[in-house]
Amino acid sequence: MISPEIQAELAAIVGEEQFRTDPESRISHSYDATPMYQSLPDGVIYPTSTDEVQKILRIASKHSIPVVGRGSGSNLSADTVPSKGGLVMVMTRMNRMELDRENHTLTVQPGVHTQRIHDTVEKEGLFYPPDPSSMAISTIGGNIAECSGGLRGLKYGTTKDYVLGLEAVLASGEVIRTGGKLYKDVAGYDLTKLLVGSEGTLAIITEATLKLIPLPESRRAMVAHYTDLDAAARTVSRILSEGIIPCTLEFMDQKTIQVVEEYANIGLPKEMAAILLIEQDGPPAIVEHDLRRIREICQESGATHLEVAQTEAEGTRVMAARRNALAALARLRPTLILEDTTVPRSEIASMVREINRIADKYQLNICTFGHAGDGNLHPTLLTDARDPSEIERAEQAFADIFAAAIRLGGTITGEHGVGLAKAPYLEWKTGRIALDVMKGIKKVFDPQGILNPGKIFTDTPRTERGRD
Amino acid sequence: MISPEIQAELAAIVGEEQFRTDPESRISHSYDATPMYQSLPDGVIYPTSTDEVQKILRIASKHSIPVVGRGSGSNLSADTVPSKGGLVMVMTRMNRMELDRENHTLTVQPGVHTQRIHDTVEKEGLFYPPDPSSMAISTIGGNIAECSGGLRGLKYGTTKDYVLGLEAVLASGEVIRTGGKLYKDVAGYDLTKLLVGSEGTLAIITEATLKLIPLPESRRAMVAHYTDLDAAARTVSRILSEGIIPCTLEFMDQKTIQVVEEYANIGLPKEMAAILLIEQDGPPAIVEHDLRRIREICQESGATHLEVAQTEAEGTRVMAARRNALAALARLRPTLILEDTTVPRSEIASMVREINRIADKYQLNICTFGHAGDGNLHPTLLTDARDPSEIERAEQAFADIFAAAIRLGGTITGEHGVGLAKAPYLEWKTGRIALDVMKGIKKVFDPQGILNPGKIFTDTPRTERGRD
Repeated sequence: MISPEIQAELAAIVGEEQFRTDPESRISHSYDATPMYQSLPDGVIYPTSTDEVQKILRIASKHSIPVVGRGSGSNLSADTVPSKGGLVMVMTRMNRMELDRENHTLTVQPGVHTQRIHDTVEKEGLFYPPDPSSMAISTIGGNIAECSGGLRGLKYGTTKDYVLGLEAVLASGEVIRTGGKLYKDVAGYDLTKLLVGSEGTLAIITEATLKLIPLPESRRAMVAHYTDLDAAARTVSRILSEGIIPCTLEFMDQKTIQVVEEYANIGLPKEMAAILLIEQDGPPAIVEHDLRRIREICQESGATHLEVAQTEAEGTRVMAARRNALAALARLRPTLILEDTTVPRSEIASMVREINRIADKYQLNICTFGHAGDGNLHPTLLTDARDPSEIERAEQAFADIFAAAIRLGGTITGEHGVGLAKAPYLEWKTGRIALDVMKGIKKVFDPQGILNPGKIFTDTPRTERGRD
Repeated sequence: MISPEIQAELAAIVGEEQFRTDPESRISHSYDATPMYQSLPDGVIYPTSTDEVQKILRIASKHSIPVVGRGSGSNLSADTVPSKGGLVMVMTRMNRMELDRENHTLTVQPGVHTQRIHDTVEKEGLFYPPDPSSMAISTIGGNIAECSGGLRGLKYGTTKDYVLGLEAVLASGEVIRTGGKLYKDVAGYDLTKLLVGSEGTLAIITEATLKLIPLPESRRAMVAHYTDLDAAARTVSRILSEGIIPCTLEFMDQKTIQVVEEYANIGLPKEMAAILLIEQDGPPAIVEHDLRRIREICQESGATHLEVAQTEAEGTRVMAARRNALAALARLRPTLILEDTTVPRSEIASMVREINRIADKYQLNICTFGHAGDGNLHPTLLTDARDPSEIERAEQAFADIFAAAIRLGGTITGEHGVGLAKAPYLEWKTGRIALDVMKGIKKVFDPQGILNPGKIFTDTPRTERGRD
């Protein structure tokens, strides 16, 4: 609980209206898009400026009050659940942005919605590639905190690759500025890239300078069906080995296909073992050339059906199947747990088989879809949070899945972050020494541990015994 | 001095032949490519394995012996000068590499030469874009430590963008492994990107996994001459604003042109105010299209002469003018100081004018060339280290140049690193708070400060008063 005196101080910074302790505000900021995690904050505060963020953090530091930065709360690692209470600091009122056409940069405050960035820059013939599935509602501050990926990661990289500079407020209330409108800057350690993906545990980001690139002239999509999982994996491998890097190269397994088709009714054949959704962008001649060659490779690799969108609009409809996968799955059972492992792309077929084996072992319903080109798979469990025995089996299954990913040279999270959800498993990937280094870095930025406490690091790691 | 007992321990790890304390070895490792810095190490050691690196660092830690990791010593920030004595650890015997064709990765030990990487992967139709000017002699370990850039940085990024994972030994002798053959990995803080560019101050890198991309099918170069500096800057701006990103977009000012021509005799017109060297790569149709359009833009922007290479070989010859700039300049006077500032690219013309103004003010001979597309300029002073009055003026001039770069939104080093040379100025760019954070991070990795001590951080910063 925050004392009435401190509450008054906080209200004085942002105004009465922008500091709330009423039950409705607290409850609506007690959870995020991650199922099964909930914890009430003591208050919710909405700063409008870096100066206000500084003042809030000075008070929080003085009284050791946890502060959880938050945009739309669309993350999937429980990263914005205030698990230790304290303040949820909602950044959505800091939503200005400024385009620099000459330097191809966009300077944004954290509360700007990702979709608004896309819309703004594309109108100018520019392109901000990161496209997390939540982009219609997510904020750029959240994207930066999580280092969000998306469908275009293979060709264009992730959020990290587009952040050139940051303004951030440390736990102490002091401000740092990193980088700039600069494509090259090696003046000291790269704090920019360290802060991207730090999940609100190191500092509160108050401004970012994003790199933009020219908007590709055209885009075309196609879909390939497979009765054989390995044939799909072979296709991915052959496309890339010929030097073609599609802008998206998405994979859906049989279970996902069935569910998406039931939901969206777009003509997906439910008996297929796998579907690849492939999109290329660039100058029309190149797109044409690449799609023709991809089509041949699909046929040679054993695709049983191919469909090339004849227009961009048709392509958008095809890709919507993938973008809708999550919504479709969410309808099936009360609780949906969306996981996020990455393996070297040569191991995708092995990983999918591992996931299916583990699902069978624990009698669970797991659909797998994801980004085949970069090996980032989303095994997704359809379950019911009210069934403790199933949830226990689920936890065991995910531990086995993480262990399998690591065994195949992969990682426990490709784009969703560690948060609360993965903290018990982090050491499996990093090892103890690197984890200790990370804890040391956390202490440098936030000696008292007031910034998003409980995230990334946990006092109750899962022992290696839990590994499959 | 290292005691005879410790010397015996070190020799026992690597073998007598690979640990040297003779004067010749010590002297030849007392300097690097940076003029005017020299300091004798107590010994030079050549490990062949991660295990040997660990053992050496355990001994160094136990006895607080400085350790300076080194490849070819081609850096330009005095980063491998053993300014506090101790050991120079030369990594050139760790020179194995392994190509993974399916995942498009190359796993390398630090001693592999950059040029060998290019040659190896290009034979396979793959591409490792970073191309520092020293690539014929530099090692990848040095490139990673410095986050080397190069001519292709604008289109393809720098070393940082191609390191997917690392094995590194901490000062304590403990090993960490970060990342992997993974295009997406957000499991904890990004230690990979933190170590890239950390100049040997955080850990000794013993292995790296590099990302490769498809080798562009073709490449063509052209050159444009200008009697007006602003016309050249306008050209750069217009090319990029039309959505064309050339793979190189190099700039040479009049003084550089004069010197290069005297040296290389390749037909550069000495009366020109500026030259742009432009290269595009990609599918032949795109290269053709882009060069045609670039040519038009050059003409419209006021270029007085244009020459498009008709073949790749001819293009290589044209680009050699730029690659030879340094060697040409080095012939003119006994000492050459190559500086390295970056500004937002909209400020290139202003920055060149600032450099010329400062050169006049201090009566110095400064040539400027560099990477116009990414705003990374190399003002290069031709001087004589034996002339104390000129060297003093030079120091003042560079302080003014750094201050000007920062005033224009730039940085004190774009690709050469901080090292010893820039340490006094680092706070001008980062501010005190961020610099303190960096020092804190250094302490986490290397509590005793044995790894490359004196680099990046200094006890004697230049006061802001030094700023122009």
